[in-house]
Amino acid sequence: MRKRLLLFVGLAVLLGGSQLFAQELTLQEIKFSFDMIWLILAAALVFFMQAGFAMVETGLTRAENASNLIMKNLMDFSVGALAYWAVGWALMYGSSSGGLIGTDQFFLAGADSAMYRDWMFQVVLAAVAATIVSGAMAERTKFAGHLLYSLVIIAVIYPISGHWIWNGGWLAQMGFHDFAGSTVVHSVGGWAAMVGAVLLGARRGKYVRAGRKIAVKAIRGHNMPLAALGVFILWFGWYGFNAGSAFSGGTDPDIAWVATTTTLAAGAGAILAMFTSWIWFGKPDPSMSMNGALAGLVGITAGTWVIDPVGAVIVGAVAGVLVVLSVNFFDKVLHIDDPVGAISVHGVCGAWGTLAVGIFGDLTKIADVGGIGSGLTRAGQIGVQALGIGAVFAWVVVTTLVLFGILKAVGALRVNDREELPDTEVSEQGAES
Amino acid sequence: MRKRLLLFVGLAVLLGGSQLFAQELTLQEIKFSFDMIWLILAAALVFFMQAGFAMVETGLTRAENASNLIMKNLMDFSVGALAYWAVGWALMYGSSSGGLIGTDQFFLAGADSAMYRDWMFQVVLAAVAATIVSGAMAERTKFAGHLLYSLVIIAVIYPISGHWIWNGGWLAQMGFHDFAGSTVVHSVGGWAAMVGAVLLGARRGKYVRAGRKIAVKAIRGHNMPLAALGVFILWFGWYGFNAGSAFSGGTDPDIAWVATTTTLAAGAGAILAMFTSWIWFGKPDPSMSMNGALAGLVGITAGTWVIDPVGAVIVGAVAGVLVVLSVNFFDKVLHIDDPVGAISVHGVCGAWGTLAVGIFGDLTKIADVGGIGSGLTRAGQIGVQALGIGAVFAWVVVTTLVLFGILKAVGALRVNDREELPDTEVSEQGAES
Amino acid sequence: MRKRLLLFVGLAVLLGGSQLFAQELTLQEIKFSFDMIWLILAAALVFFMQAGFAMVETGLTRAENASNLIMKNLMDFSVGALAYWAVGWALMYGSSSGGLIGTDQFFLAGADSAMYRDWMFQVVLAAVAATIVSGAMAERTKFAGHLLYSLVIIAVIYPISGHWIWNGGWLAQMGFHDFAGSTVVHSVGGWAAMVGAVLLGARRGKYVRAGRKIAVKAIRGHNMPLAALGVFILWFGWYGFNAGSAFSGGTDPDIAWVATTTTLAAGAGAILAMFTSWIWFGKPDPSMSMNGALAGLVGITAGTWVIDPVGAVIVGAVAGVLVVLSVNFFDKVLHIDDPVGAISVHGVCGAWGTLAVGIFGDLTKIADVGGIGSGLTRAGQIGVQALGIGAVFAWVVVTTLVLFGILKAVGALRVNDREELPDTEVSEQGAES
Repeated sequence: MRKRLLLFVGLAVLLGGSQLFAQELTLQEIKFSFDMIWLILAAALVFFMQAGFAMVETGLTRAENASNLIMKNLMDFSVGALAYWAVGWALMYGSSSGGLIGTDQFFLAGADSAMYRDWMFQVVLAAVAATIVSGAMAERTKFAGHLLYSLVIIAVIYPISGHWIWNGGWLAQMGFHDFAGSTVVHSVGGWAAMVGAVLLGARRGKYVRAGRKIAVKAIRGHNMPLAALGVFILWFGWYGFNAGSAFSGGTDPDIAWVATTTTLAAGAGAILAMFTSWIWFGKPDPSMSMNGALAGLVGITAGTWVIDPVGAVIVGAVAGVLVVLSVNFFDKVLHIDDPVGAISVHGVCGAWGTLAVGIFGDLTKIADVGGIGSGLTRAGQIGVQALGIGAVFAWVVVTTLVLFGILKAVGALRVNDREELPDTEVSEQGAES
Repeated sequence: MRKRLLLFVGLAVLLGGSQLFAQELTLQEIKFSFDMIWLILAAALVFFMQAGFAMVETGLTRAENASNLIMKNLMDFSVGALAYWAVGWALMYGSSSGGLIGTDQFFLAGADSAMYRDWMFQVVLAAVAATIVSGAMAERTKFAGHLLYSLVIIAVIYPISGHWIWNGGWLAQMGFHDFAGSTVVHSVGGWAAMVGAVLLGARRGKYVRAGRKIAVKAIRGHNMPLAALGVFILWFGWYGFNAGSAFSGGTDPDIAWVATTTTLAAGAGAILAMFTSWIWFGKPDPSMSMNGALAGLVGITAGTWVIDPVGAVIVGAVAGVLVVLSVNFFDKVLHIDDPVGAISVHGVCGAWGTLAVGIFGDLTKIADVGGIGSGLTRAGQIGVQALGIGAVFAWVVVTTLVLFGILKAVGALRVNDREELPDTEVSEQGAES
Repeated sequence: MRKRLLLFVGLAVLLGGSQLFAQELTLQEIKFSFDMIWLILAAALVFFMQAGFAMVETGLTRAENASNLIMKNLMDFSVGALAYWAVGWALMYGSSSGGLIGTDQFFLAGADSAMYRDWMFQVVLAAVAATIVSGAMAERTKFAGHLLYSLVIIAVIYPISGHWIWNGGWLAQMGFHDFAGSTVVHSVGGWAAMVGAVLLGARRGKYVRAGRKIAVKAIRGHNMPLAALGVFILWFGWYGFNAGSAFSGGTDPDIAWVATTTTLAAGAGAILAMFTSWIWFGKPDPSMSMNGALAGLVGITAGTWVIDPVGAVIVGAVAGVLVVLSVNFFDKVLHIDDPVGAISVHGVCGAWGTLAVGIFGDLTKIADVGGIGSGLTRAGQIGVQALGIGAVFAWVVVTTLVLFGILKAVGALRVNDREELPDTEVSEQGAES
């Protein structure tokens, strides 16, 4: 039937072509078609990033937790898709109440093709924010608790700060610029991950008190090829993530610019993380290098459209150094147990990338797409970027403190001691690894 | 050379643009270009589903059979591509003889760009139908037998029922609607898998007679992360599978609608399968949840264009419950050994999704693209959908009974006892796992 | 912000549509948009091939080397991206000096959207050439040496021979045709791999002298499912690799032709390699069959646009036989240790595919896009193809002899004996496998 219809359409075009297209509407439809296939394909690429996160998290943790982790990854997208359809989209992209929160379009009420299209691209971004959290909380979180916090983050926490920035909210009005989500997506996930990791506490045996000192034990991942596969999938999906965010949609000539800066920042991040670990530890560290590539990608996400190739290399390089320092700082100094480095990659490097927009960004381009408060000086732009970073940090820390605090209070956050180590949560699911 | 040519084309456009495009043909070419890049990219995504099936099947079976399984997956696509080029396409999309079978275009004779394009999209769908079978017949089928039945399914069995539905055959004429292949692709694979599993018999040690009872042994998969990766790849590829089937090709504004209903049904399927297994078995089961996502995807495939988001959630949710019940029914009651649940996911949920078109589908949309017999009442549409499900079931069961019966009679179906367990068919290939 | 802007654009189109599009420029912009999204998506697909190479190489070698191999794959793309941005692109696509080498556009100086777009597609092709080498040199190469030779190949060696063929250089002017890179990309990688493998020497224990004979030990890979996943990823990415090279960009009606010949050659290659190994060794060999699929893909790459489906089946089939013979010849006769068969797949079958353009290619199509010397007879075309194969072979062998020779002389090529086997280079990185 499909093919018959295509033939029919083809015939109609052939016979009535001049009539069919001799309308002003047609060229709009062409623009619409570009946006449609571009955003749906970009959304598919970003969806595939779920597989990347699942492989990175599985590879960098212990084999016994593999079933549990991939189950969480599958379910947080599933739960998240329904939650973002019912509530999340409305709070993020519904009609604004004072630039603070969206108020309509629940269950995509009144949706047309353009809204379904935009929802498809947004739901996969929202799922990324939620999935980031599971990495930092791996190997000790209750499954039911995971489902609940993922639901709340996608339905409420992520959309509200997203509204401030991507739906003309108060931060957008001040001229804050975050092209594809260093702050909107990655930092939100990273800060939620941080609060979750702190309230959960470390995995058993990770930090052992020895007299007045605390011995930090490295808990190695079990499958580097899977982790590397995950990194390649994430990098691949990032072309959808960043280039899909093009302001002019599928006809934007800057799609190539965005893809170029994304590539260079990722490469620079991997290289600098490798050298940093090489100099510091005496050997190039694979998991640090992989996190360096991701750090470069997270870092360039906010400024990929306004930062030029040289700037992108610098942003990525700084992110590559930063992620190694940050992972060590959270682990060795703060003793916050983050098995995959999610806080550093997404939280810290997301903040760095957002700030970098102010430092390296083309102010004219920023002003062109900016809100009422656009047209800032460089100092002003840096200030607004810092304000946005701080506001989102505060929002996420406060709301997730409440969220994880309630889950902890009712005993839904952490698995029992007997469920953890060496079999940990797998026992919750009775599944083979 | 490539780049030079592009520059040349660019120059030609710049200099002679008005002439070059000032023809009526041009806007048709634009429509054609959208269809081309859309269908080829969708075909690439669907091709990638072969990797998804390979990973799901490998992950859910024993390590010793891994080499054998992935070899089968690689070869059935390879054999299938040549078979669908030589014969399959002709029987499916050649000029119809009485709405029953295509009769020309063998070896793509007389093909133009549009036909190559449609072939590329159709060959990857055909390969999906054949690959489904290998999952249910895993761990005990002879390699040569596998090659032969894959060849016959892709070259003959699949194309003929496909002709009835997608090339204006007798079912299409009656108003039967299957947008992207719940029946055309998935049920064909699922029912062939069922007949194959029955004629093969169960794996050694799977059902053990103990007095008057039969003890059912669970044979666990060996690699959940690989299986999960496979599910994510399949879900990713499904955006090509469903949205690629758009009636208006690459300019169809309903591409976003299709992607949305696909996403929601998959999520609902995973969630409901998880809860069903949680309630029934006391623990959320990862492999059931994964099959739930696939069940939701298979279920929405027929109606993805005519069922709205709320309907999609219901279709997916029912599929998620159904797949758990069905897997248990085939295993515990019928004692048909299906290592990966392919019969339930593709056969049963394919039938459910096809019926759901009648229950939840927009009758106006169905009539718009329907055949002579379109414009049915709801009861009539449900009846026609049921008729189509039954007709394809009968066709596949009868033809594969003959096919697998002959293979069994000549000893080409099942490996020797000594080749099975614990090393089974690996010995056939002398390969490391 | 993104969504708001899209709405704004939508509004502008709605209100001012006729004005906005009532310019001659618009239809050029449509052509430009097709080229943009087509090439960027194709580039993303080719980028993903990095994951394919990483999985194939990891799966076909020993578990102890997995961390090291995937680290090399990640870093050679990262280093390569910066190198091709700084130098490689300029030498390949800069203004030609006598048809021998490009001379400007270092660091993409003066780039516009079209140049960023072309760079994105070219950088991922360049990275493929470099990554091929790591497979043949696996399990015994120093990490620092790997970084250095990858850098030089992408920055200097690959771009110069590429310039001869794809930027109107002397071979292009003679009418040499290599559509998507059987020679430009694959043979360059394959011949560099050969020289590297020879200068490195074999892995410890691979060839053991026993009296006057040399015993050849098979060193088995450790993970066939990962290797198979890699092959599927490569095949998937090849649709971007070959179809992305379309001369008319995203509006080329021959995109479907290219996808069809690519599919058929790959299938024929897998089938014939399977049968060859079956007849020769008594069992169908999975890794040979996988290499057969890749051999078919490499083989059709040069002629995918000028060879018809029947020719594509022949080209793929010959490549499938050839790769089995060649792997055995290099291993058993020449005693060159190539753990994954990269020399045979990419070098030998790349040369075969390039020659096949002369034998099976449509001379009219070749002449249409050819240089000054185009319009050759069949004998002439075969001669020019052979000349190009030889010239690139000579260029790569000489330059990489110097490159690897220097690395060997300064002790940067091969790991110490104590670092190799059974833990080999992993010790260099202190990382879990």
